[in-house]
Amino acid sequence: MKTPISSIGEFGLIKRIAEKVNLYNKNTIKGIGDDTAVIDISDNKYLLFTTDLLIEGIHFNLVYTPLKHLGYKAVAVNLSDIAAMNGQPTHILVSIALSSKFTIELIDELYEGIKIACNKYNVDLVGGDTSSSITGMMISISAIGFVDKNKITYRNTAKVNDFICVTGDLGAAFFGLKFLEREYILYEEFLKENKEKEFQPDFKGYEYLLKRQLKPEPRLDIIRFFYDNDIQPTSMIDISDGLSSELHHICFQSGVGCRIYQHKIPIAEEVYKASEEFNIAPETAALNGGEDYELLFTISEKDLHKVLYSKDISVIGQICPNTEGLHMITQQGNKIELLAQGWIHFK
Amino acid sequence: MKTPISSIGEFGLIKRIAEKVNLYNKNTIKGIGDDTAVIDISDNKYLLFTTDLLIEGIHFNLVYTPLKHLGYKAVAVNLSDIAAMNGQPTHILVSIALSSKFTIELIDELYEGIKIACNKYNVDLVGGDTSSSITGMMISISAIGFVDKNKITYRNTAKVNDFICVTGDLGAAFFGLKFLEREYILYEEFLKENKEKEFQPDFKGYEYLLKRQLKPEPRLDIIRFFYDNDIQPTSMIDISDGLSSELHHICFQSGVGCRIYQHKIPIAEEVYKASEEFNIAPETAALNGGEDYELLFTISEKDLHKVLYSKDISVIGQICPNTEGLHMITQQGNKIELLAQGWIHFK
Repeated sequence: MKTPISSIGEFGLIKRIAEKVNLYNKNTIKGIGDDTAVIDISDNKYLLFTTDLLIEGIHFNLVYTPLKHLGYKAVAVNLSDIAAMNGQPTHILVSIALSSKFTIELIDELYEGIKIACNKYNVDLVGGDTSSSITGMMISISAIGFVDKNKITYRNTAKVNDFICVTGDLGAAFFGLKFLEREYILYEEFLKENKEKEFQPDFKGYEYLLKRQLKPEPRLDIIRFFYDNDIQPTSMIDISDGLSSELHHICFQSGVGCRIYQHKIPIAEEVYKASEEFNIAPETAALNGGEDYELLFTISEKDLHKVLYSKDISVIGQICPNTEGLHMITQQGNKIELLAQGWIHFK
Repeated sequence: MKTPISSIGEFGLIKRIAEKVNLYNKNTIKGIGDDTAVIDISDNKYLLFTTDLLIEGIHFNLVYTPLKHLGYKAVAVNLSDIAAMNGQPTHILVSIALSSKFTIELIDELYEGIKIACNKYNVDLVGGDTSSSITGMMISISAIGFVDKNKITYRNTAKVNDFICVTGDLGAAFFGLKFLEREYILYEEFLKENKEKEFQPDFKGYEYLLKRQLKPEPRLDIIRFFYDNDIQPTSMIDISDGLSSELHHICFQSGVGCRIYQHKIPIAEEVYKASEEFNIAPETAALNGGEDYELLFTISEKDLHKVLYSKDISVIGQICPNTEGLHMITQQGNKIELLAQGWIHFK
């Protein structure tokens, strides 16, 4: 049998792997299926354990991704997974595979970005592996972190009537990538005519979008805010694949439905401007764009007043019974079904 | 500046990365520089944290590496790193990148091997990442494990007069690879003449060598033996790059020298036979071959009698002052300097 992976997709492949897994250790609290694995290590703490893979040509294009930003982002996306469990990241391992085109100076740049992220978030780089590669660069980062047992937050514990919240704003990273791709195409045209030295990329007015794409920040400030204000999210996930896909994860795993309000989705002004240039609705970018690395979480009514006036948190809807499905209510009052359109890597 | 990585090599690159690292967490006991990172997590336990990268075309050739074995080996090499700290592995994350040539059936085979290794060593697969790749397969595995604080064993704590021991036998994995490469070249000749269906690889009498190359075992049985017999190694490392290279790590980091005896190096009968076919001395394979994943450790005199009669452990020499350097004494009584010739990936 020769069944292509594309026939089941990335989520299908993960599901297939997860189904075959046996667990032997009684301290394994959570295996495959959340932002991190959860392991019982002491009376009051859980260990969180996660990993992410970034591959040149699939996840990043070095023509428009500065290596320093890439290093920073590679760390940030892992820390974001730890944040999504309501935890604090502490240590990372960094493995890199490099083709011969990479010089020591380029590697220094990459590690400069890794180091800046570690410094900003008090995370220790404690090891890794290095190898040559046949083509391009590959970065694999693993992270561990810790969380108080009574603070751990899973994806599968949203309850009917909980309020749905997102941090920051959505869709900006998507348009950041669109701009980078557009300028790259222009650059290639200049290159064809041997005029690449004359080429000047034009991102004026869209610096925020670029920053969101190239240098995302894990929302560990929000985790601190939860701790300081005694807020316990009832479920949480980080938004790596777009709001719609993440809502599907929370709802499917929690056995619930949801209703969100289009006009409550937080969208930056630059996204509205970009949406006109590219003729893509801002909500489409927010729902399906991905890579914003904001947090999507639910809270019970008792905590609602604690987040309602936060400048960093938007209440966008509510959890409803499974039978009601997943919907977005438009400003006109129409009900649109939310589809799970995350990034599909295996095409 | 455009300095090729090959000018400093893999160890040079790791050293360069390690020098720039700051540590922010007071529970970081050991960062870069040993088989695993060591993190303080409770009154009596340390957490061990490690990762390894396997890349098609660099670390393995799928023409002669069955995917089931590859999955098994990818897990085994990580568990071996945990064993080298005198620890017990418990959890792994597996990330894979795959080009479109890989079907679901092939991935199932790979995970079958991963699962068999997990089952054998009571390790839980608790997550990972999946991605497509531009070319070939890449496997990145991270592992954690635990060790009692009073049992932790580092590379840099060998003392003058300690006895040097190795487990199992050395050089077999090297010749296993030689056979696979030889048959592969023959296969390609059959292929050129469109006679590949007539090709029958001939490994008769060398099955042990193949097994050592394709399906190495982490020596967790030895860690158990240490526990059961109250043996505390004074230093330890796993032999992934060859005995000579690992002795250099232990001696350099411990600030000592060593003297080993050629005729005490454990070498399997099949290695002697293979060494004639390939005209490579068995000691060369043992010293520089690598991939045996045996343990190299030192013990103090008080523990010597506990290992002296073990069928799985050979005492091969003794630690001496730094000033005496690293040497092998031949059967004729000659003194040969040991060179650190590990695998150099960056050429």
